Amino acid sequence: MRYCIEQTRALAKALLRVLEMIGMKALVLEQQMKLSLREFKIEETLGDGDVEIAIKRVGICGSDIHYYTNGKIGPFVVKEPMILGHEGAGVITRVGSDVKHLKVGDRVCMEPGIPMSFSKSMKEGHYNLDPDVRFWATPPIHGITRESVIHPAGFTYKLPDNVSLAEGAMVEPLAIGFQAIHKAQIFSGDTAVVTGAGTIGLMIVLAALTQGCRKIFVVDISAEKLAIAKAIDPRVIPILASNGNESIIKEVLLQTNGQGAEVVFEASGSAAVNEYLIDLLAPAGKLVYVGMPSRPVSLDVVKAQAKEVSMYTVFRYANMYERAIASIAAGLIDVKPLITHTFAFDQAIEAYEFAASPSGPVVKIQISLE
Amino acid sequence: MRYCIEQTRALAKALLRVLEMIGMKALVLEQQMKLSLREFKIEETLGDGDVEIAIKRVGICGSDIHYYTNGKIGPFVVKEPMILGHEGAGVITRVGSDVKHLKVGDRVCMEPGIPMSFSKSMKEGHYNLDPDVRFWATPPIHGITRESVIHPAGFTYKLPDNVSLAEGAMVEPLAIGFQAIHKAQIFSGDTAVVTGAGTIGLMIVLAALTQGCRKIFVVDISAEKLAIAKAIDPRVIPILASNGNESIIKEVLLQTNGQGAEVVFEASGSAAVNEYLIDLLAPAGKLVYVGMPSRPVSLDVVKAQAKEVSMYTVFRYANMYERAIASIAAGLIDVKPLITHTFAFDQAIEAYEFAASPSGPVVKIQISLE
Amino acid sequence: MRYCIEQTRALAKALLRVLEMIGMKALVLEQQMKLSLREFKIEETLGDGDVEIAIKRVGICGSDIHYYTNGKIGPFVVKEPMILGHEGAGVITRVGSDVKHLKVGDRVCMEPGIPMSFSKSMKEGHYNLDPDVRFWATPPIHGITRESVIHPAGFTYKLPDNVSLAEGAMVEPLAIGFQAIHKAQIFSGDTAVVTGAGTIGLMIVLAALTQGCRKIFVVDISAEKLAIAKAIDPRVIPILASNGNESIIKEVLLQTNGQGAEVVFEASGSAAVNEYLIDLLAPAGKLVYVGMPSRPVSLDVVKAQAKEVSMYTVFRYANMYERAIASIAAGLIDVKPLITHTFAFDQAIEAYEFAASPSGPVVKIQISLE
Amino acid sequence: MRYCIEQTRALAKALLRVLEMIGMKALVLEQQMKLSLREFKIEETLGDGDVEIAIKRVGICGSDIHYYTNGKIGPFVVKEPMILGHEGAGVITRVGSDVKHLKVGDRVCMEPGIPMSFSKSMKEGHYNLDPDVRFWATPPIHGITRESVIHPAGFTYKLPDNVSLAEGAMVEPLAIGFQAIHKAQIFSGDTAVVTGAGTIGLMIVLAALTQGCRKIFVVDISAEKLAIAKAIDPRVIPILASNGNESIIKEVLLQTNGQGAEVVFEASGSAAVNEYLIDLLAPAGKLVYVGMPSRPVSLDVVKAQAKEVSMYTVFRYANMYERAIASIAAGLIDVKPLITHTFAFDQAIEAYEFAASPSGPVVKIQISLE
Repeated sequence: MRYCIEQTRALAKALLRVLEMIGMKALVLEQQMKLSLREFKIEETLGDGDVEIAIKRVGICGSDIHYYTNGKIGPFVVKEPMILGHEGAGVITRVGSDVKHLKVGDRVCMEPGIPMSFSKSMKEGHYNLDPDVRFWATPPIHGITRESVIHPAGFTYKLPDNVSLAEGAMVEPLAIGFQAIHKAQIFSGDTAVVTGAGTIGLMIVLAALTQGCRKIFVVDISAEKLAIAKAIDPRVIPILASNGNESIIKEVLLQTNGQGAEVVFEASGSAAVNEYLIDLLAPAGKLVYVGMPSRPVSLDVVKAQAKEVSMYTVFRYANMYERAIASIAAGLIDVKPLITHTFAFDQAIEAYEFAASPSGPVVKIQISLE
Repeated sequence: MRYCIEQTRALAKALLRVLEMIGMKALVLEQQMKLSLREFKIEETLGDGDVEIAIKRVGICGSDIHYYTNGKIGPFVVKEPMILGHEGAGVITRVGSDVKHLKVGDRVCMEPGIPMSFSKSMKEGHYNLDPDVRFWATPPIHGITRESVIHPAGFTYKLPDNVSLAEGAMVEPLAIGFQAIHKAQIFSGDTAVVTGAGTIGLMIVLAALTQGCRKIFVVDISAEKLAIAKAIDPRVIPILASNGNESIIKEVLLQTNGQGAEVVFEASGSAAVNEYLIDLLAPAGKLVYVGMPSRPVSLDVVKAQAKEVSMYTVFRYANMYERAIASIAAGLIDVKPLITHTFAFDQAIEAYEFAASPSGPVVKIQISLE
Repeated sequence: MRYCIEQTRALAKALLRVLEMIGMKALVLEQQMKLSLREFKIEETLGDGDVEIAIKRVGICGSDIHYYTNGKIGPFVVKEPMILGHEGAGVITRVGSDVKHLKVGDRVCMEPGIPMSFSKSMKEGHYNLDPDVRFWATPPIHGITRESVIHPAGFTYKLPDNVSLAEGAMVEPLAIGFQAIHKAQIFSGDTAVVTGAGTIGLMIVLAALTQGCRKIFVVDISAEKLAIAKAIDPRVIPILASNGNESIIKEVLLQTNGQGAEVVFEASGSAAVNEYLIDLLAPAGKLVYVGMPSRPVSLDVVKAQAKEVSMYTVFRYANMYERAIASIAAGLIDVKPLITHTFAFDQAIEAYEFAASPSGPVVKIQISLE
Repeated sequence: MRYCIEQTRALAKALLRVLEMIGMKALVLEQQMKLSLREFKIEETLGDGDVEIAIKRVGICGSDIHYYTNGKIGPFVVKEPMILGHEGAGVITRVGSDVKHLKVGDRVCMEPGIPMSFSKSMKEGHYNLDPDVRFWATPPIHGITRESVIHPAGFTYKLPDNVSLAEGAMVEPLAIGFQAIHKAQIFSGDTAVVTGAGTIGLMIVLAALTQGCRKIFVVDISAEKLAIAKAIDPRVIPILASNGNESIIKEVLLQTNGQGAEVVFEASGSAAVNEYLIDLLAPAGKLVYVGMPSRPVSLDVVKAQAKEVSMYTVFRYANMYERAIASIAAGLIDVKPLITHTFAFDQAIEAYEFAASPSGPVVKIQISLE
C-alpha cells in the first residue's frame, strides 16, 4: 500500500512537470561572451502558493555582466545555457489556489532568491543565508529576461499605483541599500560615510537618507559619479578619493567636530580603502562591508578596538522589499534618475554589449518587455 | 491547455489525499467532557519536505485540559471531534524525498505549529505570529495523541542519544521558557522574579538559570509548588504570596540592595499580581507577560515610565527547540523531576480525568505509547 | 592631620558658596497661583567642568503650568519659592577650567537634568533614570526663567549657526520625541500611529518622520490640532477620534493592508485610548507610552500576546540633544511654526496666565530675555 | 568681584592639594627593567564622591609586565617613575561626604579607569571609550601596587561576604570576559569557540559558560594551557592548534552538525588565526576580537558576507564589575584555581621577575598587602 502511494505520487508529479514544460522567448547566455535571444523551454509548475508573472522590466546587474564576460563568479560557473537577469518587475497572469494577497493583473516586483521552506535560516528570519537558496541567474538557476516566470507569491510584491514597473525593477538593488542600513541600525542624526559611488553605493545613500542621516560623505575616485551622488540630496558631501587617504580622514573629522562618523559603508569593493575606514569612525562606530573585494583585506584590530568598532557584512537582503517599495511610493526615494538607459527586449543583446563597455554616465540599464 | 493542466493537477492531488486517508487509534475529544480512545481516519500526505513519526510520548498541557473541561478557549471552539495533545516525541518512520537531516529510526520531538511557507511572519523570523499557523490540538487542527503523524521535517528535531523520549516531550513547554528569556535578553548576573510556580513558571526558571541569573525569586500562593521550584537550584528564592504584596516587594528590594530585579516574568495568569509587578523592577527593568490572564489587567504607566520599564509578551515560541534540547543534552537543565506522572496510551482517558482533578504535587502528566 | 584637612576643605567650600550667592531677576512661583518677577539670590558655583549661561529663551512646558496652577505634580510639591522653566537656550558667559568644547559667546541649549557623576544609571547610559537626578523646575530645584545659570558643560550643547535661540529652546521637548522613536527603533518604511496631537505628540511626529516612516496616523479629538499635525508633512494622516474607536481601528487597518501599524505612540495621556491601542498594531508591533495618564490604564495582555507586542515607556530623554539639534540644522525638522507665541521677560507672568487659559491654536509659548 | 572669586577658589584648591600629598610605600617602575619598592609621594584629594582604599591584593597583568620589560605599549611610554598594577582589591578607610553605598571597613574591588564626568562616552554608557579616561598604570597615571588609593566611589564595588579579596582582584580580568560575552550577546544553547587559552581566553570561557553555552571549543598551541581550560567544565572541548587549521575547522564543524559555532572569540592575539576564524562560524555568526595582534590581520570579506558574519571588538569593559562579582558570589564562576601564585608586598619585585620569566603552569600572579 505504501509502495502504491509512492508510485502514484511520483507519476502524478512527473505528469505535472511535463505539462508545465512551456516554451518562451528568453535572453540566454549560451556560454561566456555568447548571448542568444531565442525560444527556450522551462520546467516550472504553478504550485498552490505560486503566481505566474509576465515579465515587463529587467535591470542588468553587475553580476549579469560578469557572467556574460567571464562565464563565472567565484564557485558559480555557467556550464549550460542560462537565462540572465534577476532584477525584475511584471504583471500577474495566474495565481495558485492558496494565494490571497495577489490577483491577475497586479503589477509586481519579485525577490529573486527562493529559500527552502522551513529551513533553519528561513525560520530564523535570515532566509538570504539559506545554503540551499535558489537565486535567479546564479548557475544553474535561470534568470528572468524572458516572457514569464512562476514564482512563490510570498516573494512577489504588489507595486502601489504611483510606482512604475521600471521603478519596480529597481527595488532589487535598492533592497541591498536597505539591508545595509538595517545592519547599521542608523538612528536619526547619525553621520555616515559611503565609500564607492557605483550603483550599490548610491542605493545605500538613498536608503540612509530616509533614515535621518544628518550628513553622508560619499568617497569615490570619479568626479562624474560623485556628481550623480551629490545631485541626490544637499546632505550628500562628495569627497574625491584621488587627494589621498589623509585628506579623506581630515575632511570627515573636520566636519564631525573631530568625532568621526557613526557609520561607514564600504561599497567600492576596493581592498585599498580598508587602510583608512577605521580612521573615519567615531567611538562605538559601525562599519558595514557591502562591496565584495577580490582578495582578503587588511584589518587593524587594535585600532578598531580602541573605539570598540562593530563590523557587519551584507549578503543580498531579507525582508527589505516592502520597505524599499514603500519608500519609493512615499516619495522618500526617487530611483528614476538612476535608470539611465532602457533597451527593448529585441535589443537585449545590444544592451549587454553596451553594459559591458559603457560610455558616458551610466548607472542602471534596463530591458523593457512592455 | 492551461485548463487541462489545472484539472490534471486537481485530480492528482485528490488521488494522493485519498490514498493517505489512513486510520489509526487516537484519543479523541468528541465534545466537552467526552473523550474516546478509538480508531480515527486522518487525511495527511507525506510531502517532499515531510516526515512521518510514530508517536511515543505526549504531555498533557493546560490547554488540552481546558478543551476537555470547557470545550473551548477564547475564540477556539471544539465543534467536531478533535484529537488532543501537542507536546510530543517519537520515532521517524518515513521521510520525504527532500529531507536531509533526518532518517528512519531517528528519535525526535516536534514543534506543533505549522506556519504558511513564505508568509510575512515566516520571512521575518517570528513564524509563531503567522495568523494562518496550524497548531496541533487547536480547533479545527488535530493533535497527536495517536499512533503517528506526518509533519514538516523543518519542525522536527532529532534528540541526542542522552535525551529520552519523555524528556523530548518536555521540550514544547520548555521552549516557552526559552522564548520568555529570549524576550528578556537576560544577561549573566541579572536578578529575576517569576510570579507563578506552575509548569510554565518552572520552565522559565529552568531556562533563566542557564542564562546566568544570580538569583531568581519565585512567587506563588502554594508552598508545595514553591518547594518544587526551590529544589531546582540554590539560586531560587521562594516567596510565599499569601503574606501580601508589600512583603513581596520588601523581600525583593532587600535582596537586591534596594535596586529591584532586572527582569520580572509574569507566569501566573493572575490579574491581581499586576498590582505590584512594576514595583519589583530596577530602573530600565523588563517585564515579560507569559501567563494569560482571563481579563485585562491594570498597568500604572506613570510608575513604569519613572523606570523606563520595557514590557514584552510571549506567544508560544519560535526558534527555541534546538536550544531547549541542547540545554537538556548539556546537562544544564533537568526536566525529568518535573514529569511527575506517566500513563499508558490505553489509560489516556484516565490520565485526562486525573489531570482535570489532580491530587498531590503534579507538574507534568505524560501519556506513553511505547 | 586628617581632621585638619577636613576642616580646611569644609571652610574653603563654604567660602566659595558664599561668594557665588549672586542675585538676579527671576520668574518665581511663590506658591500655587502666585508668580513674581523679582530679584532672587541663587547659590551656584562654577566648577571646573561647568559653564555659565546668560538665558535668552525659555519655553513654557505643561509641567510649568501645572506647578503654577496646582502647586504640585504627584509627589513633587512646591513648598518654597521656586523659579520656573526648564526649556532653555542662551549664550555662554563663563567657562570652567576643564571645559574644552565651549567658549564664551557660544550660543547653546541645555539639558535640564543633572545626574550624579558615576552613578549606576549614569554609567549604564540611561542617566535620565538616576534617582538622584536634579531637574530644573522640579521642586526643590530651581528652573531657569532668570538672567543666568551655571550648568555642567557636558549637558550644554552648542547651536549651529543656522539654528536660532528660539529653536534651541525647542530642543528639550523635541528630545522627548527622539527618545520615543529611539525606544521604538523605527526602521525606514514603518507605519506609525501617534495618539494625541499636543506638543509632545507633534514632537514625536517630527522625529518619526526623520526616521523614514511611510505614513503616520495622528489621532486626536481636536480638528484644530489635527490641522497643525497635517501641515507638517504629506505623510501625516489625521484621524478624528470623535468618530469612535471602531472607526480609528478600521481606518488604520484599511490603510495598512489589514496588517496594522508597526509602532503606536501614546502621547495623549488619556486612559481611554488604551481600549484600542493594541488593535492598531501589526504582529510584533511596538507600543510606546509617552503620555502620562492620571490613573492606571487597562492592558489586554492576551490580545497583546497574540501579536507578541512589545511595550516601552519613556521618561524624559538621554543622549538625544545632539540628534535633535542636528535634525533641525540639517533641515529635516522645522520647529519654528510650532512656536506660536513669544512674550518678553517683563511679561512672563502674563505669559503664564495666557498659558493657563489659552485661546486659539497654541502649541509652544516662549519667553524671550533677548 | 568675579576675579576675587576665582582667586579664592584657586587658593583653596591648592591648599587642599598640598594637604593631601601623602607619602606611602609603592612598587615603582623607575624606568624600563628597573623596579623599586620605596616611599612615594602622591597627590590625591578625597572628593565628596570618593573613597580611600587600603590596598590588599594586586594582580599582575600582561600590560604591567610589558611596561616593566619594554618601558612602553604602543603610544604609551613610561617617561617618569610610575607605580604599577591595576587589578586591585582592598578595604575602605575613608569615604567622601556624598558616598552612600560604601562605608569604612567595606571590602571592595575597583574599576581602574576613570572617565571624565558627563563626557559624551560617559553619557552614552560606554565610558571605556572616553578619550580622556585616566587608567591606572597607563603612563602617566599611577597604578595601585601601594598602600592606599583614593578613587571615585562609583567605580568601587563592595565584595559580598563569600568573595575573598584575592577573588576581588580577579574581577578586573574577568570583566573583560564579560565585556566579550556581552558583545557576542550569547543566548543559551549557543556553541562558542575561544582561540587562545591565556588568562583572557580563560576569562571568556568562564563568562561564556555562565550564559548557557552548550559547548565551548578552546584552541591553543599549548597542551598545558588546554588542560587548565578543560578542567573548568565538561562543556569545554580543547583543540590542539598544532594539528593545522584544517583539523580545527573539521573538528568544530563535526561537533556542530556541520553548522559551525554561533560565536568565535579571538583571544590569542595571533594574526595567523585569522586565516580560519570565519570558517568556524555558522550563518549569522559573530566574531569577537579580544586579543590584540601586533599587526593588522587578514579579513576575507566575501567569505564573511556569505554568512553575514558580524564582528565586534572589545576595549576593556564598561558596566561589567557588578555582574562579574555576582557570578563569583553565586558560585557560577570559580576564579580561585586560576590564582596560581601569590607573593608578599615585600617580594613584589621578585613577583615581577618571575612573571617576566615564568616556569610551570602560570595563570595569575598576585601581590598580597595583607
